[in-house]
Amino acid sequence: MSDVAFPAKVSVREVGPRDGLQNEDPISTAAKVELIDALGKTGVRRIEAVSFVHPKAIPQMADADEVWSRVVRDPAVRYSALVPNLRGAERALAAGFTELEVVVSASDTHNRRNINRSTEESLGELPELSTLVHAAGGTLQLIVSTAWGCPYEGDVPVDRVLWVVERGVAAGVDSLAYGDTTGMATPPRVTRLVEATRSAHPELPLGLHFHNTRGTGLANVYAALELGVDDFDASVGGLGGCPYAPGASGNIATEELVYLLEDMGIDTGIDLPAMIEAAGLAERLVGRKLDSQVLRAGPAVR
Amino acid sequence: MSDVAFPAKVSVREVGPRDGLQNEDPISTAAKVELIDALGKTGVRRIEAVSFVHPKAIPQMADADEVWSRVVRDPAVRYSALVPNLRGAERALAAGFTELEVVVSASDTHNRRNINRSTEESLGELPELSTLVHAAGGTLQLIVSTAWGCPYEGDVPVDRVLWVVERGVAAGVDSLAYGDTTGMATPPRVTRLVEATRSAHPELPLGLHFHNTRGTGLANVYAALELGVDDFDASVGGLGGCPYAPGASGNIATEELVYLLEDMGIDTGIDLPAMIEAAGLAERLVGRKLDSQVLRAGPAVR
Repeated sequence: MSDVAFPAKVSVREVGPRDGLQNEDPISTAAKVELIDALGKTGVRRIEAVSFVHPKAIPQMADADEVWSRVVRDPAVRYSALVPNLRGAERALAAGFTELEVVVSASDTHNRRNINRSTEESLGELPELSTLVHAAGGTLQLIVSTAWGCPYEGDVPVDRVLWVVERGVAAGVDSLAYGDTTGMATPPRVTRLVEATRSAHPELPLGLHFHNTRGTGLANVYAALELGVDDFDASVGGLGGCPYAPGASGNIATEELVYLLEDMGIDTGIDLPAMIEAAGLAERLVGRKLDSQVLRAGPAVR
Repeated sequence: MSDVAFPAKVSVREVGPRDGLQNEDPISTAAKVELIDALGKTGVRRIEAVSFVHPKAIPQMADADEVWSRVVRDPAVRYSALVPNLRGAERALAAGFTELEVVVSASDTHNRRNINRSTEESLGELPELSTLVHAAGGTLQLIVSTAWGCPYEGDVPVDRVLWVVERGVAAGVDSLAYGDTTGMATPPRVTRLVEATRSAHPELPLGLHFHNTRGTGLANVYAALELGVDDFDASVGGLGGCPYAPGASGNIATEELVYLLEDMGIDTGIDLPAMIEAAGLAERLVGRKLDSQVLRAGPAVR
């Protein structure tokens, strides 16, 4: 609507090396390092570089330590690691990460299938995990996955999501992100959850992580921008997929997000041609055509 | 935003058989008829079936007369034809169409490259064309293409678009549609043009035709829904492409649009599983993987 005040700047977190690659056939350690280094030169300020998960659960991330040791770290970029539990946090801290994200699914069935424990069990570990990260001088974000729906349970009530958030706040997490794990969100659902969260925790920094599984990714971003949300995850080239729907697309593509934001006059610090080039690299590294439309279409004017 | 009143119903015009197929390698007459007949069974109420253009310009539509003569016409469906000029309108009326759309590009360069005449020349023919259609008992819609940008000229000013509309209104067109021919629109551009149009012509029925060339298609739909727009074009499976960017996607996919609208509680009359099935048929008929995400991902819950 024309009377909405959109944010002047948006902070983009590039999650292609983690959420993207963990849903692709495994690629070499050198290829992962090449991608992360290329992304570091696009102007993006935050990169989720790896996750510390059990190598049997996600073999694509088995070399997380080695990837991280070989990345040419740019001081202008904040690199982060995702962890599913206390053990992962210990590994991430030992590897030298200071920015950690712990993921908990709002849906109990999804949490069990994803990390083999109940939502309650994950939440029960949060205070100790938070203490550990803070004692090491780090920060901890709580990522609530299946925040807009679960492929097993269907709708996930807003109250259920807020209950998870409440536990995270009590444990002292520094920020919050919501994940639309299988792309079930639509704009009115985004609006409802963001408004309810802001109402309950007005000071808690909030980021959103959309998948484009059903084509609604940028529509969801737009609805969130109308509410002033200024922190979004995206994956270069739309790298990745959906473990619940073979062949379906994954995260929203970073260059599509940047195209939208730039055209709206919202600053991201990201150089769009450089990000499109990185998407081309991602496509070559995984050896398949990625879902990014901007990668295909290129600049708006010939 | 939570205080927005979205429309309760949306009228979808299926344009796959025309805008979709004219950007694919030619398929047989029988295949076109099969697709149109399948679409007629999905609950969609409007189908743009063919265009009457010069066969040298768009060979994919050379058999428009034969396609139309073989379609099993469903009385619950309104079928329409697109025409570029007076000659096309004469052919469409002779074939028995009573719902015609004439396309004029707001960008002079695009109009010249698309239909080999200036925008002014196209507009100059509108009064005679309108009289012809109305004398035959038909209705005429003016479709303004490149309404949000031109692949040759870049930005197209709102005033330029409104100047084209003014000429259409003076010629007596019955309704208006805006085409984002090469997918350059973003939500704030949609809002600006729709608000300016409503202000100038509050009673003129308005439909929007988005392409997903840069991934913003459904975001643009959402912005328009916030303004109460209740009439959208879409193409089954996302059939089609962009003549200016080989490999790029075409119209927004009908099943993605229906997924979004259904989840928002907005009625379309379309049966989503039937439309997904028609998208599967479209994919088989053109023999390539289409860009629709909903076709890949299927229902939200397993």
